[in-house]
Amino acid sequence: MKISGIIGYTVTPFDPCTQGVDLAKLGEVIDILLAGDVDAIAALGSAGEAAYLTAQEWQQVAEFTVKHVAGRVPVIIGIAALTTAQATTYAKYAHQFGADMIMLSPFSYYQLSEQEIFEHYQQVSNASPLPIMIYNNPAVCGVDMTPELMLAMVADIENVVAIKESSGDIQRMHKIYHLSEGAVPFFNGCNHMALEALTAGAAGWCTAAPCLIGDKPKQLLQAVANSEFERAQGLFYQQFEFLEFIVSSGLAAAVKAGFALKGMDVGGPRAPLLPLNDAKQKQLAQLLSNLR
Amino acid sequence: MKISGIIGYTVTPFDPCTQGVDLAKLGEVIDILLAGDVDAIAALGSAGEAAYLTAQEWQQVAEFTVKHVAGRVPVIIGIAALTTAQATTYAKYAHQFGADMIMLSPFSYYQLSEQEIFEHYQQVSNASPLPIMIYNNPAVCGVDMTPELMLAMVADIENVVAIKESSGDIQRMHKIYHLSEGAVPFFNGCNHMALEALTAGAAGWCTAAPCLIGDKPKQLLQAVANSEFERAQGLFYQQFEFLEFIVSSGLAAAVKAGFALKGMDVGGPRAPLLPLNDAKQKQLAQLLSNLR
Amino acid sequence: MKISGIIGYTVTPFDPCTQGVDLAKLGEVIDILLAGDVDAIAALGSAGEAAYLTAQEWQQVAEFTVKHVAGRVPVIIGIAALTTAQATTYAKYAHQFGADMIMLSPFSYYQLSEQEIFEHYQQVSNASPLPIMIYNNPAVCGVDMTPELMLAMVADIENVVAIKESSGDIQRMHKIYHLSEGAVPFFNGCNHMALEALTAGAAGWCTAAPCLIGDKPKQLLQAVANSEFERAQGLFYQQFEFLEFIVSSGLAAAVKAGFALKGMDVGGPRAPLLPLNDAKQKQLAQLLSNLR
Amino acid sequence: MKISGIIGYTVTPFDPCTQGVDLAKLGEVIDILLAGDVDAIAALGSAGEAAYLTAQEWQQVAEFTVKHVAGRVPVIIGIAALTTAQATTYAKYAHQFGADMIMLSPFSYYQLSEQEIFEHYQQVSNASPLPIMIYNNPAVCGVDMTPELMLAMVADIENVVAIKESSGDIQRMHKIYHLSEGAVPFFNGCNHMALEALTAGAAGWCTAAPCLIGDKPKQLLQAVANSEFERAQGLFYQQFEFLEFIVSSGLAAAVKAGFALKGMDVGGPRAPLLPLNDAKQKQLAQLLSNLR
Repeated sequence: MKISGIIGYTVTPFDPCTQGVDLAKLGEVIDILLAGDVDAIAALGSAGEAAYLTAQEWQQVAEFTVKHVAGRVPVIIGIAALTTAQATTYAKYAHQFGADMIMLSPFSYYQLSEQEIFEHYQQVSNASPLPIMIYNNPAVCGVDMTPELMLAMVADIENVVAIKESSGDIQRMHKIYHLSEGAVPFFNGCNHMALEALTAGAAGWCTAAPCLIGDKPKQLLQAVANSEFERAQGLFYQQFEFLEFIVSSGLAAAVKAGFALKGMDVGGPRAPLLPLNDAKQKQLAQLLSNLR
Repeated sequence: MKISGIIGYTVTPFDPCTQGVDLAKLGEVIDILLAGDVDAIAALGSAGEAAYLTAQEWQQVAEFTVKHVAGRVPVIIGIAALTTAQATTYAKYAHQFGADMIMLSPFSYYQLSEQEIFEHYQQVSNASPLPIMIYNNPAVCGVDMTPELMLAMVADIENVVAIKESSGDIQRMHKIYHLSEGAVPFFNGCNHMALEALTAGAAGWCTAAPCLIGDKPKQLLQAVANSEFERAQGLFYQQFEFLEFIVSSGLAAAVKAGFALKGMDVGGPRAPLLPLNDAKQKQLAQLLSNLR
Repeated sequence: MKISGIIGYTVTPFDPCTQGVDLAKLGEVIDILLAGDVDAIAALGSAGEAAYLTAQEWQQVAEFTVKHVAGRVPVIIGIAALTTAQATTYAKYAHQFGADMIMLSPFSYYQLSEQEIFEHYQQVSNASPLPIMIYNNPAVCGVDMTPELMLAMVADIENVVAIKESSGDIQRMHKIYHLSEGAVPFFNGCNHMALEALTAGAAGWCTAAPCLIGDKPKQLLQAVANSEFERAQGLFYQQFEFLEFIVSSGLAAAVKAGFALKGMDVGGPRAPLLPLNDAKQKQLAQLLSNLR
Repeated sequence: MKISGIIGYTVTPFDPCTQGVDLAKLGEVIDILLAGDVDAIAALGSAGEAAYLTAQEWQQVAEFTVKHVAGRVPVIIGIAALTTAQATTYAKYAHQFGADMIMLSPFSYYQLSEQEIFEHYQQVSNASPLPIMIYNNPAVCGVDMTPELMLAMVADIENVVAIKESSGDIQRMHKIYHLSEGAVPFFNGCNHMALEALTAGAAGWCTAAPCLIGDKPKQLLQAVANSEFERAQGLFYQQFEFLEFIVSSGLAAAVKAGFALKGMDVGGPRAPLLPLNDAKQKQLAQLLSNLR
């Protein structure tokens, strides 16, 4: 199983009455991503409010996602647990449910040392045979990993095989490519950096954008792959303001608002997150209208 | 109930075999703090690894702490929950167990807007009649609150009455004092800033240091209260390197290592946190020896 | 010659017609500072727009200042030259004119290495027998020096004897005090940090505030020296908003506007600096009125 | 005159004996850049140590550069003066000497407001008819300009026509492109960001690299222009470590060391800058050898 291309991220729909996870709607979200020509499905990432789910909800979403995708594309399951014990438990579930890969971030209340981060990944690798994608997103996880640390984990921990870089600094990707001589696959996790990430050699782009704008991200990826620079640039700037908007507004709130604008009620984000306010909803409607 | 002075913070002891919470040892920790002449006891703060406890463990610690203190001093219970629902649940428990105050921080995976933070505090205030101390610690919680926002919450949300500032920027305290004309009590949450915080008008100092160095923090507080500047300065610099060490090494790991050095086994911190390494343990032993 | 206490900083008056330096007015500024009970006079610091003066103007100001002070208090001359050659030339002039001390900052277009900074100070020390105060002000000079580097220069470079810390981080002062065991004199260069700097053991406070508020800074310094805690806190918060205002508005523009409000025309700051706008002038007038 | 492509930056050679500017060597540097197929020559930028030259030296270099290039390609003259008066004087000289464009940065001792920056550019535009390229390099100039401010100056100040972005943040370029709908030419000023800048639509790349590695930068630029994606990526990563090295080591010191390694003595950088140490020289020799 080789994962590359557009990795489509789900949001986690909540039932407006019970506030519980709405699995039927999650199935619709997955199907919309697949219709947007994504090359893999990822659940329980930042867009999926994984940190706000109970352990039981997390398992429901992970299990359902694998079943619903049913082998059409590979499935990645995100783990952002506060303790190593919880992360290893989740990793075992992901394997048991039949996922193809784990995406693991060192989400933490405390500043973690490099040794603590390394041990965290080592324990999760020991607990499950699934390949692991390191997820570096300092803005949400509160922990920043250098390219050097991440490459050391790829080299030294058995199941760690890839990197998702969401720090927003393109130099990190250059470092990963340069230091590994292009051998370690890295993925773009910062939507409004997609053009340069793909140009810099990213193996793919992790994004919830296809939830709302279909195969536009895939078209951009293919334009780069086909060396159509002008087309790639055009496609990027066409999506740019939208991509920046969903990041700066909060992925979960923004994508859920976008679904509502398309007539599909997936509930709001879970508190303390608030839904987009009216002005933001109007702005999003305009951006989506421009992209049609 | 007026809370001021030295607020002594507990660590959460774990049983070396079961890895569960060791309540008997927690009782000993509380008694050590009280012997250090603290004016209040606070459980489930950063030093207490609250973010790493299960909901059941959190309740055990909260309930036991109130019972064990048994009215000798007021008790503050820390809440750093990811969702508003969890925070309100904990707030109800704190009230039910008989705590005197809640210390609430907006711990979050996502960047929260000021409105989201405000609503979070509002909901918790609605859920429990306990007075609330706002806890601003951007380094661990990933959320930074301005003095202006915190003062607005004190003014507009019924039970919000005090501020614990741990950003490390003394200007925040000046702002709080200046903007509220000295009327809103604020506490120092940054150990190696204690001298200037107290001089700037802090109502007290939140610290786990008395776990290891007895009444030294109280002596410093009293020297400032008595206008003994030279004595205050001397006491501060005597403790300075130790205070900086426990902050930079991680409070939970450092204080637990200090207990071990004193012959009391409270277990290590919970993974991904690692215990202090040998070099750090030796450094701590030296610092404690200097302070005896 | 031992320098301590309030170091009063001059602005550099410009003639409204010729735009050249107005030495007569500079004399008046110096006399106002002395009437504010300062313990030393410093010319050609940040408040003095030294970086914007021609070499000839710089010499005029330095020479005039020493002559006009005429031994009533010690005189410090600031040097913020881009090249080492220029800095050594200025150092020789300062000595020749009879100054008591040089204040030297590594102002630079480029990021300088610690070795480059060290060599810069070494060359200036070789060029003049005057004692040197290191001036660390990263916000304006573009170079930040650690306490460790500055203490190494005090230890290893003959004429380097003191430190002026303007980074705004009180921990730097604690480090200087702690690492030197209180032996190296350091001065506060951040106006709205005066209370904690003095409490932390600063030998003095470098400030242009006495240009506008007379002996209020000296009163604060003496209250700390006399262990009058409550009085010190009261005096600090009385001045706080004013001190913060002149820093955030730009010292040269703010102090010159203050002189104009008092009916003394010292000209505006030199372009690209602009004078305070009307709203800021009104705010300053109010602040000064509150302090009378 | 339309300026685009590779803008080759000169260093300023100093005579080892007199320490004065060595114009003959400067002529050789210019010829080496032209042999590297640059599309324009720029003197007196960061690589040229302009901030460390006397006014007389600055004029010599500006005048000589225009004469020596003699119309073979356009000439850009950099201005990084501390006062507006000095900047306007230099702008007049640049025009008088026959330069084609001015590159102007708001180099300053003080934090400048947006209005102060705007007025600075306005005054320079009033003083000379030459087109002006805004140069944003916060790391050296101490002033950071937003895309919005720079675009406002392009729109509202007569001679301001282009932007050189050296902040190192690719999002700034996306903003410039997006907000101006591609109409305002922007140049890459951050060497190790060249690939993504060109992909993002930069009109060119400002670089001293051709001093040492000939037409490699031009090849990269052309590969992007020809939509040869794989070739562009290969050329970029071939040069990447070298480009990062000359930036992190300081452009002037690094490029001058490179000339020495090639057997051409252009002197060292001016103090406080130091020449590369032995280890760095060996590293540079290796990097250059890899690129041959």
